[in-house]
Amino acid sequence: MKPSHIEHIGIAVKSLDAAIPFYEQLLGSPCYAIEEVAEQRVKTAFFKIGQTKIELLESTDPEGPVGKFIEKKGEGIHHIAFAVKGLEEQLEKAKEAGIQLIDARPRKGAEGLDIAFLHPKSTFGVLTELCEDKNKPE
Amino acid sequence: MKPSHIEHIGIAVKSLDAAIPFYEQLLGSPCYAIEEVAEQRVKTAFFKIGQTKIELLESTDPEGPVGKFIEKKGEGIHHIAFAVKGLEEQLEKAKEAGIQLIDARPRKGAEGLDIAFLHPKSTFGVLTELCEDKNKPE
Repeated sequence: MKPSHIEHIGIAVKSLDAAIPFYEQLLGSPCYAIEEVAEQRVKTAFFKIGQTKIELLESTDPEGPVGKFIEKKGEGIHHIAFAVKGLEEQLEKAKEAGIQLIDARPRKGAEGLDIAFLHPKSTFGVLTELCEDKNKPE
Repeated sequence: MKPSHIEHIGIAVKSLDAAIPFYEQLLGSPCYAIEEVAEQRVKTAFFKIGQTKIELLESTDPEGPVGKFIEKKGEGIHHIAFAVKGLEEQLEKAKEAGIQLIDARPRKGAEGLDIAFLHPKSTFGVLTELCEDKNKPE
């Protein structure tokens, strides 16, 4: 694998309304998008810092993945997402290397990206996302 | 505050020897430095990805901050570090804004950086580091 950069860092929060003003102050940069990702049962808020985005995640369902995360661990860093090219091929390679996949195939995430998660059991406890922006001209 | 980029992401691991080969494969990039930070009771291993570094942290003392973190939460993402200019002034501003500081004044971290931590109680559960590289010509 050879990701180009960290695409975003996902942070689980109880309330976007409470967390957005803090991150606007910390990053000196406005929240530029709020988007609901129904499949993941989250509402997301995005900020830019250098090459990377901060993605705040508020659960819309206590039984959803972020709801359960907060229930178990409290608010905090939820995942890291690496920008890759050829996501399907990268998933094949990861599988061949013995890495356990949460998503065997890419699915749609926030901002129209193709995304897939690797299982934290295989990644030293870090919920790791690989993502590809196929709409990005390069 | 207006950090320029995410300087590094700290990941707590039980064993650098076990985690380094995995991260070399995931990032497609070699570990470029291993450094012990005696004050923090950790051994660190660094990788580059875009503007950001991944800093693996192995505790050298079960009673140290990373030892306790792993004991409580297991391996995983430990902190995010933002690159700022004028760290002392930024800490003053953070304090004035009501953010609880772990380090009221900068101290030395890995790679010769001046660093200071904000308390996760004030940052929605995210252990947040501000750091400044005064040796970097710009």
